[in-house]
Amino acid sequence: MSITVVGSVAFDTVETPAGRIDRTLAGAATYFSLAASYFTDVRVIAVVGEDFTEREETVFAARGIDTRGIERAPGKSFFWQGSYMENLNEAKTLQTDLNVFASFEPKIPEAYQDSEFLFLANIDPVLQRRVRDAMPQAKLVGGDTMNYWINDHRGNLLKMLEAVDILLINDTETKLLAGHKNPVKAAADVLKMGPKALVVKHGEYGATAFFGDGAFPLSGLDKHHPFRAPALPLDEVVDPTGAGDSFAGGFFGYLASQPELTPAVFRRAMFYGGVMGSFTVERFGPERLTQLTREEIEERFKLFRSLTHLD
Amino acid sequence: MSITVVGSVAFDTVETPAGRIDRTLAGAATYFSLAASYFTDVRVIAVVGEDFTEREETVFAARGIDTRGIERAPGKSFFWQGSYMENLNEAKTLQTDLNVFASFEPKIPEAYQDSEFLFLANIDPVLQRRVRDAMPQAKLVGGDTMNYWINDHRGNLLKMLEAVDILLINDTETKLLAGHKNPVKAAADVLKMGPKALVVKHGEYGATAFFGDGAFPLSGLDKHHPFRAPALPLDEVVDPTGAGDSFAGGFFGYLASQPELTPAVFRRAMFYGGVMGSFTVERFGPERLTQLTREEIEERFKLFRSLTHLD
Repeated sequence: MSITVVGSVAFDTVETPAGRIDRTLAGAATYFSLAASYFTDVRVIAVVGEDFTEREETVFAARGIDTRGIERAPGKSFFWQGSYMENLNEAKTLQTDLNVFASFEPKIPEAYQDSEFLFLANIDPVLQRRVRDAMPQAKLVGGDTMNYWINDHRGNLLKMLEAVDILLINDTETKLLAGHKNPVKAAADVLKMGPKALVVKHGEYGATAFFGDGAFPLSGLDKHHPFRAPALPLDEVVDPTGAGDSFAGGFFGYLASQPELTPAVFRRAMFYGGVMGSFTVERFGPERLTQLTREEIEERFKLFRSLTHLD
Repeated sequence: MSITVVGSVAFDTVETPAGRIDRTLAGAATYFSLAASYFTDVRVIAVVGEDFTEREETVFAARGIDTRGIERAPGKSFFWQGSYMENLNEAKTLQTDLNVFASFEPKIPEAYQDSEFLFLANIDPVLQRRVRDAMPQAKLVGGDTMNYWINDHRGNLLKMLEAVDILLINDTETKLLAGHKNPVKAAADVLKMGPKALVVKHGEYGATAFFGDGAFPLSGLDKHHPFRAPALPLDEVVDPTGAGDSFAGGFFGYLASQPELTPAVFRRAMFYGGVMGSFTVERFGPERLTQLTREEIEERFKLFRSLTHLD
């Protein structure tokens, strides 16, 4: 089944202890769609400027990603500059130029209307909700958000959360969104806001999925059985940018590739999320995601298994 | 096979968001030995003062722990007061009175000399090394340490590390001991100092074991195969004191109870470590460790398995 993702397609300039890259193709929808493309058909809704050329288009095309929903607008694409020099786990933003993204009005191609999976990457929750409502056929909706929307646009965010089945956010965002610091109580709070499942990302420690009680029609995914997937201990993290979006792409890509959402499928999807995130951080920008093989992905999946399984 | 542990037997006063406890029986050797006692015979080497009464003695006796190595000295026992009010993951020390511990000279009862497992809990590395040398029959030696010894007694600590097979420390201590911030490179550094295995504790995220190459005589535990065990997401942490020592107790207790150290045994030991730590933090002090059943432990082990395993 195909996935439609709405989010940013952007250019990033990033410096890390391993070096620096200038104006690499980036953005949440880019990382998500490249990661998901190894598992299923992906369609993107975004807006780019005149600096998005044949070269960038080719990156999507080479992975068979449908870009008919990427609108070309006069001006420049979204640009972000960040530094991980002080802390590899948290970027320091040096510059953000919204450019064409400032007036983004998602336009959904008619051909996307049969996507049964929809992912709302981190953008204004008003737009996220609008896209969700405009794609009523989507039977499983994932979403992401960030501190800015949680702090300053809570009302709009709550309306978006009502329409999301699986929310993927990090530890800090979970605690900020909830009224508790305790991770289990915080997750329970967030699950009352709408999502049937919450995947909390822990960076180098992996991710934990929490479920609402009886939220999915199938048994086995319930509040008494959280699930924790690992991250791979890596001897070098070149550039952490996009790890979370790659996790989401691997996770939803695998879910969409399966005939049914069972507990075993959900668990494997968590592992594939970690796998795709672990590839992304090995190179600057999304480079590693453009050159993988399914065999490399399966090999790493086995590594994740041996890292966590008793036998 | 029996374990001998050397370390502190103390009294703690602790405040956490869940409440406060005054002068509870505590100390690394207490938590370690109670946790290990569910798996094997345990013998303790420590020093206590006149405030260690029949009541405290009974806590050890009820778990069948050999206390002939607990020396009674004139004066008061080691006392620590700490607060977790600001941060449940890190104690703020309010008071430390070494008392009889200041002149601790470990005395090893003759009857302990056939212990094949030895655990050197966090004390002066000079004493740790002395005990190890005085128990040459010990075939597997575990150890712990802390920032103070890493920063101010590095020379003595390095001599102790040469004599340790499995070192259990946390993320911060690992990075402080090593020359790298990257967790994989930091682990490789520490493994060059002597230990054949390093278990890095991540608090609420569990623990990761790293191995030196070909360090154990058996195959399957090597530098290419780290192993990550989870911690249990708990909806209330009453008192985190002793979680790390309980982990070590469950881990070594299980190892000592098995006829052979295989990769599968090592992995299960990591899980039992997490299990015992998860019980400890449910109550103030070591209370929970005094009243468990093996059935409860096995039940929780299954929970840890379902938390991490694909099927």
